[in-house]
Amino acid sequence: MTILIVGELINTSRRAVKEAVEARDADYIKKLAKMQVDAGANYVDVNCGTLVNNEPETMAWLVDTIQSYINHPLCIDSPDPKTLEAGLSICKNGQSMINSISAEKERYEAVLPLVLKYRAKIVSLCMDDTGMPTATDDRLRISDKLIGGMVSNGVPEDDIYVDPLVKPISTNDKAGIEVLDAVSEIRRKYPKVHGICGLSNVSFGLPNRKILNQIFMIQMMARGMDSYILDPLDKTMMGFVYGSTALLGMDEFSMQYLTAHRNGLYDK
Amino acid sequence: MTILIVGELINTSRRAVKEAVEARDADYIKKLAKMQVDAGANYVDVNCGTLVNNEPETMAWLVDTIQSYINHPLCIDSPDPKTLEAGLSICKNGQSMINSISAEKERYEAVLPLVLKYRAKIVSLCMDDTGMPTATDDRLRISDKLIGGMVSNGVPEDDIYVDPLVKPISTNDKAGIEVLDAVSEIRRKYPKVHGICGLSNVSFGLPNRKILNQIFMIQMMARGMDSYILDPLDKTMMGFVYGSTALLGMDEFSMQYLTAHRNGLYDK
Repeated sequence: MTILIVGELINTSRRAVKEAVEARDADYIKKLAKMQVDAGANYVDVNCGTLVNNEPETMAWLVDTIQSYINHPLCIDSPDPKTLEAGLSICKNGQSMINSISAEKERYEAVLPLVLKYRAKIVSLCMDDTGMPTATDDRLRISDKLIGGMVSNGVPEDDIYVDPLVKPISTNDKAGIEVLDAVSEIRRKYPKVHGICGLSNVSFGLPNRKILNQIFMIQMMARGMDSYILDPLDKTMMGFVYGSTALLGMDEFSMQYLTAHRNGLYDK
Repeated sequence: MTILIVGELINTSRRAVKEAVEARDADYIKKLAKMQVDAGANYVDVNCGTLVNNEPETMAWLVDTIQSYINHPLCIDSPDPKTLEAGLSICKNGQSMINSISAEKERYEAVLPLVLKYRAKIVSLCMDDTGMPTATDDRLRISDKLIGGMVSNGVPEDDIYVDPLVKPISTNDKAGIEVLDAVSEIRRKYPKVHGICGLSNVSFGLPNRKILNQIFMIQMMARGMDSYILDPLDKTMMGFVYGSTALLGMDEFSMQYLTAHRNGLYDK
């Protein structure tokens, strides 16, 4: 198991990014991409979903702009298949990632051909036409369906990143443990398939959200989750990623941890 | 699963405690006990093992002194059976805990009668006459032997607290994951038996030890470890305990977490 970090900051739902994209401020975008990979991101997520009027064109501009400056692969993030293709068709840095497919029939049928055409890694949401999952069993049933369907169409298990869909513990005490149990079980059943998730939903509605998100990342990793969509400029979070990796025996001689320490990781 | 915290501060290996004990400074000891239970400790550990010349007498003074001021139960901590009995025989606050028994023949035979006589909870070290455990399998074999032996003598499973013995990752990359895997497996095999551990060994020889210890506590709890011997005055560590508990679905409506937040837990 090695840990994969997807930097989440290039997203037009963040106001500064929206303004930079609307002004076609290439320097801002380039720097935001560079800062994330310098901080340890393996992939850079690209999301302009709030600009629905010209999302495909905007995605193409973003991908071109970022690739003119960094050599890391990108995670093309949209619910819109046209926007996904606009980005994927010009990606040139290694294996792209698509964010995302789900078991919803229409979305599944529209995105699967893109996964195959571009041989992309694929974020796979545990959601189907009955809606968001509630219990651990829902997630296992939907992930079985998604993994089975994609593998039978020729997608390698190693390219699949299952997102169990994290929900707030403030609305359901068991929301955290149900995801953690799903992660353990999916890892046991499909050792080659990866897990991926965003972290911030879990703490919605509670105080000290940052700390809860950090704890939840550590819990997830202790259960076998190996990929995270997060802010790599958050030094405390990245410190916890490196510390967890070393404690889980995935960092020979703690070299990565010691390097991160020398480079000043952790805020404190 | 509920979390049990044993406050570790009354230990004569800490210089200020040693000086207070030698001077029979009852006020210092009382306050140190009170601060720990006020901060959330369920048990107060009592260890005067560095004062080998009069350990039983010192233990009796400590137990008397602490019990004159707080009503919480105590964890009587010594490798010496005479010292254990000197403490246990005068404990009057609820069910005492003994720290510790092991599968070493001499120690096992000397401590088991005390566990039975005082109906105490018992910290059970995964160690036998062949020495400290190295791999996960060693820990499983020794815990099988310890649990089987004690249960067949009438110790309830619910009173047994298995300590998997944490070793530094700086001397063996896999030292952390081997303990975590042992915790998962012991929990699966003996759901009524508890786990307990100290945390600080894991980070020996590395920088940012406090943060590594905090991460390891969170990882342990995500695997089912439910008791910790720690410094309850460390607000960040206790914040992580409360946050982990809420995220693992053991805190209805996040009430304990919210109370801890209102009381100013977390250093920051």
